[in-house]
Amino acid sequence: MADTEYSGVQLHRELQTIAMSKQRTVRLECGKPTQMNYVLGTELSIDVYKPSPPKSQLFEIRFSPGVKCSILDQQHVTPVTEHAVKSVLRKGTILLVRQDKTSKNVNDNKVTVTFYEDKSNNPIDEMTLQFTAVDISLDVDADRDGQVEENHPNKASWSWGPNGHGAILLVNCDKDEAFSSKPDNTDNLVNSLSDLKDMSHMILRTEGPQILQSGYKFQLYVSVSDRYKVQVFLRERGRLLHVLGNQKLSFVTNYTFGKKKYDFFIEGLRFPDKDFDGLVTINLSLLESMTVGEAPIFTDRVVFRMAPWIMTPNTLAPAEVFVCSVAGNEKFLKEFKAVVAKVNCKLTICPEYMNRRDRWIQDEIEFGYIEAPHKYFPVVLDSPRNRELKDFPYQNILGPDFGHVTRTSDVVNSLDSFGNLEVSPPVRVNGKEYPMGRIIIGSAFPTTSDGRNMAKVIRDFLYAQQVQSPVELFSDWLLVGHVDEFMTFIPAPDRKGFRLVLCSPDACCKLFKKLEQEGHGEAQMFEGQNTQSIKINKILGNQKLLEDNVYVQQCVDWNRDVLKKELGLDEEDIIDIPVLFTLDQKHGKAMSFFPDMVNMIVLGKYLGIPKPFGPLINGKCPLELEVRAALEPLGLDCNFIDDFAAYHLLTGEVHCGSNVCRKPFSLKWWNMDM
Amino acid sequence: MADTEYSGVQLHRELQTIAMSKQRTVRLECGKPTQMNYVLGTELSIDVYKPSPPKSQLFEIRFSPGVKCSILDQQHVTPVTEHAVKSVLRKGTILLVRQDKTSKNVNDNKVTVTFYEDKSNNPIDEMTLQFTAVDISLDVDADRDGQVEENHPNKASWSWGPNGHGAILLVNCDKDEAFSSKPDNTDNLVNSLSDLKDMSHMILRTEGPQILQSGYKFQLYVSVSDRYKVQVFLRERGRLLHVLGNQKLSFVTNYTFGKKKYDFFIEGLRFPDKDFDGLVTINLSLLESMTVGEAPIFTDRVVFRMAPWIMTPNTLAPAEVFVCSVAGNEKFLKEFKAVVAKVNCKLTICPEYMNRRDRWIQDEIEFGYIEAPHKYFPVVLDSPRNRELKDFPYQNILGPDFGHVTRTSDVVNSLDSFGNLEVSPPVRVNGKEYPMGRIIIGSAFPTTSDGRNMAKVIRDFLYAQQVQSPVELFSDWLLVGHVDEFMTFIPAPDRKGFRLVLCSPDACCKLFKKLEQEGHGEAQMFEGQNTQSIKINKILGNQKLLEDNVYVQQCVDWNRDVLKKELGLDEEDIIDIPVLFTLDQKHGKAMSFFPDMVNMIVLGKYLGIPKPFGPLINGKCPLELEVRAALEPLGLDCNFIDDFAAYHLLTGEVHCGSNVCRKPFSLKWWNMDM
Repeated sequence: MADTEYSGVQLHRELQTIAMSKQRTVRLECGKPTQMNYVLGTELSIDVYKPSPPKSQLFEIRFSPGVKCSILDQQHVTPVTEHAVKSVLRKGTILLVRQDKTSKNVNDNKVTVTFYEDKSNNPIDEMTLQFTAVDISLDVDADRDGQVEENHPNKASWSWGPNGHGAILLVNCDKDEAFSSKPDNTDNLVNSLSDLKDMSHMILRTEGPQILQSGYKFQLYVSVSDRYKVQVFLRERGRLLHVLGNQKLSFVTNYTFGKKKYDFFIEGLRFPDKDFDGLVTINLSLLESMTVGEAPIFTDRVVFRMAPWIMTPNTLAPAEVFVCSVAGNEKFLKEFKAVVAKVNCKLTICPEYMNRRDRWIQDEIEFGYIEAPHKYFPVVLDSPRNRELKDFPYQNILGPDFGHVTRTSDVVNSLDSFGNLEVSPPVRVNGKEYPMGRIIIGSAFPTTSDGRNMAKVIRDFLYAQQVQSPVELFSDWLLVGHVDEFMTFIPAPDRKGFRLVLCSPDACCKLFKKLEQEGHGEAQMFEGQNTQSIKINKILGNQKLLEDNVYVQQCVDWNRDVLKKELGLDEEDIIDIPVLFTLDQKHGKAMSFFPDMVNMIVLGKYLGIPKPFGPLINGKCPLELEVRAALEPLGLDCNFIDDFAAYHLLTGEVHCGSNVCRKPFSLKWWNMDM
Repeated sequence: MADTEYSGVQLHRELQTIAMSKQRTVRLECGKPTQMNYVLGTELSIDVYKPSPPKSQLFEIRFSPGVKCSILDQQHVTPVTEHAVKSVLRKGTILLVRQDKTSKNVNDNKVTVTFYEDKSNNPIDEMTLQFTAVDISLDVDADRDGQVEENHPNKASWSWGPNGHGAILLVNCDKDEAFSSKPDNTDNLVNSLSDLKDMSHMILRTEGPQILQSGYKFQLYVSVSDRYKVQVFLRERGRLLHVLGNQKLSFVTNYTFGKKKYDFFIEGLRFPDKDFDGLVTINLSLLESMTVGEAPIFTDRVVFRMAPWIMTPNTLAPAEVFVCSVAGNEKFLKEFKAVVAKVNCKLTICPEYMNRRDRWIQDEIEFGYIEAPHKYFPVVLDSPRNRELKDFPYQNILGPDFGHVTRTSDVVNSLDSFGNLEVSPPVRVNGKEYPMGRIIIGSAFPTTSDGRNMAKVIRDFLYAQQVQSPVELFSDWLLVGHVDEFMTFIPAPDRKGFRLVLCSPDACCKLFKKLEQEGHGEAQMFEGQNTQSIKINKILGNQKLLEDNVYVQQCVDWNRDVLKKELGLDEEDIIDIPVLFTLDQKHGKAMSFFPDMVNMIVLGKYLGIPKPFGPLINGKCPLELEVRAALEPLGLDCNFIDDFAAYHLLTGEVHCGSNVCRKPFSLKWWNMDM
């Protein structure tokens, strides 16, 4: 499948498989019996008139027990009773034959058509069909209960929602064996039982007489493009044979006798993407020998959807917290650990030999997960950013039941970092539900052709997952350019279960003006920090700074309007947090003037917030007080962490320097109504 | 909308444009008025509480005539009357402002919020908004009546059906100027008035005060991928400027004063295809200067769908018939002309210097058409086959109001010829309507990895047109491998308005046996032709030939079953025509034994049928008699044309050697329910 830059609708599956009919035309002739295999669920259509002897006026049908015959005459279908009755032979008369039970012996079903010239009992001639009825069913877990059922009526299609159907595959992107250097989906082996558990079970059931019939074969096959999306293993005498996928388009095996069950295991290889809508079809045909080649006389089909990669919003409970240890961040680490300790969740500290002084662990990775009825595991999305932390996700996070997926890009910019990739809590927008929230991406204005945007390969990947329909914001006004610099989500006990937190220069200016009016103009910011302190009235006297912050407020307000619309939010759902910005002289892009309190880590009700180092009024920081006043009534625990020297001065804060792998949604994604 | 057996989802448009809100957050402050531009149809959202002086308890809103104000307080919206009333000021109180009329003067709309400490009439302070209301509308023919209307409510989306909406584009693939060597969509010029008529009209209407406002610009833009699908011309002082498309992603112009109308003309460049769902979006933003750069504060959007290429079934009236003149086909041409003369339609004979002895004009081209509410023209699809006829379509068919489209493939095989591409008449299948029929393509079995198939570029193109959802048949059993060797459609006055005609070795064998039984076994085929004649009983005595024809019948029956299912046909809709086949020794592929009567040309009720040269019984050919008996009751006029030496012996027949450009459907494709 061509991997073009511009996607659109996947108009069709690339291999446009020839449609198979459930009805099969069969031609009989007088004088010699016609013998054939018949598959349960199909129907044989036999023209009675054409092969009749010239003088025939009447015909009579007899059949062995269990066979169901009916006559199609001028679009009227009349069942044929077991007590043979002569019918008038007309041009176009069709005999339809079915059987619902498998044969005990070869050709044990029989249908005879006898022709008469008149109502006497002297037949002119007769023709006979003998057939072996076999049952063939390719089965999957189409009802999503974790078990393969028998012949689900909708196994060949896929639909969303609690009343939907269709089997599910996982991309086997974890690494179940410690000795392996690559994810499990990169080889064509089943490495272990736990590797097998990441695959979806598929069963081929066949039933027929206890005698081998020659001239028939089974063929399991996928389309040219699907072979890169899945591979199939067959369990045979305890071994797992690789039968489909990559170079293998098709697997042919002899048709077998008696009652048989073949166990197949399907491994997902690729996530949905721009050129892949997530659906994969596996076909099983019964081939019948012809004079030349073989004809597929019956085809059964199953459809899988590849489980999407799902992001986890701040409202989900943390499972594991990540942070880097680098020279000089000891004080930060101590305070950070204290917050994590409150939550009682695992903390992984990436050591300096591994992070190579790249402390921005938020930017290198994003945690998510994949889920099928039979299995769940977290998957880390590895950014194309690839700075010094680049080997950490592949070498240290990828492992048993912890998957890894990445996309690479030749050209990267700061907006490719995953501080620029967030996800909202569940929302409802004008009646449309997003029960897993919506992905948030920071971009340039669409009117701008020279702005920075997240790499198309990543945006394509995110859109293709479908279940968390992305919203793009304007973040290119920031020097670093990440959405986590001006927004976050925090849990709340009321309303929609969360608040959107936005940074607000306007709120900060109003607070500082109030302080000045109250006589605290001489109070200083940054006291005791390794930077020049500055008085409140000096800030308020800096006209350029104030004007720049009017501009920043316009940028934030533009995003505020989009977020209100795209997440269905009211003003009451938004909390403004005082933050000031400065614009860099070269590009006119914004950086926070003091530690950006919006750039916090959210661990349940515990918040790790950059300590703003505002002026101390009566020993208290009014910036912290304002944040506490806004957040504590929601039951949140505000912990201000000193990230000034180790993060803020390097243009990042607490959130940029940490990451959280969260527990999955209780909602199963396939139960979403799409 | 997606046209697949396993529905694909439209994952996203490639440029994920940042969503624009119709509501805009505006911040006022006491002391100085805020001035801005307002676009009709949007709403301003103003926080009243945050900027209020500390002691404020009440507020009062006054506004100039025509302004509509309301108060949003705890999710209740209360309209503000013109007689100012003091309201209690609460945290979270929002003022919403609208205006439905454009301004006569800059900033002639005014809203004042006055703050009070108590119910006395002594205000503490007040803040003022002054705004200019302007109207901006990007308009297209979204209701499909051939005229651009004003501000259609659904102009930014597209839907199918008689109650659908959305504008339409044509691929400007004709060549309106005789001196030009290439189709009109290959340059970025408007060559003539007739060239302009192939484009879709788009109007930008603006209205505001008669004074130029600085700080505002218009920007018209398309996404990165859409620029290769359309180009846009602006009519300015009688000239047509190329403003968008190919290298031009965006067109910026100053915002203008007063009432203005800009005429744009949109030219389609590409047909829908695998990577293009047919939809194109054109955006128009109003940009407002910021401290850094410009913010889009309002965006209007229109969506077009590229008209699909539509094939014409045999049931549509012929407009022009094509045939080749080659050395040795004079007798054929004379008989062929006589049939065309009956229909009274144009006949174009491609001369030998142009066809270079390639007589298979059916195989090099397929005629279809494109249509928009404002324009229709036929378009020839040029096969990648590219044998000696390859220059004919581009050099001789492409012209004024006759378009040309092609796809090329490095590797071609016989199934790429368009004798292997047909279309059914309109059908209804299990309740689903195909009012323009379904495309028929011949393929190998899907189970076969080494079979011949039509080039993927052509199949992709055909599927992407959406309106004639293709059906793939099994034609690889034939040496030449074209569906027109075993099937065609003919008009009929009853039932579904047509019959499917299938070749039938079974019917032929039955006919020959009947002749033998009636004592005509010694009658000879091919008498008088430049080939060895053969007796009927010699044919019936050739066991290998009979067995081969059982196989051929199985192949045809396999297709019969698929056609019945995919076109919703009954046995009564099918006519079997006697034809015998032989298998070539090398590949075991089939060729017709005598001229293949299914390979006919259909011109209204007049049929040009290959003369079979069957045995003469009482001076009459029983093969011809059988065909007449089957077709003449339908009101059809059977004309048997001698194509034996000039076509049949070269493995083709009448249909292979001719082509028909037909009149379009009366149904407009956009009125289909998809």
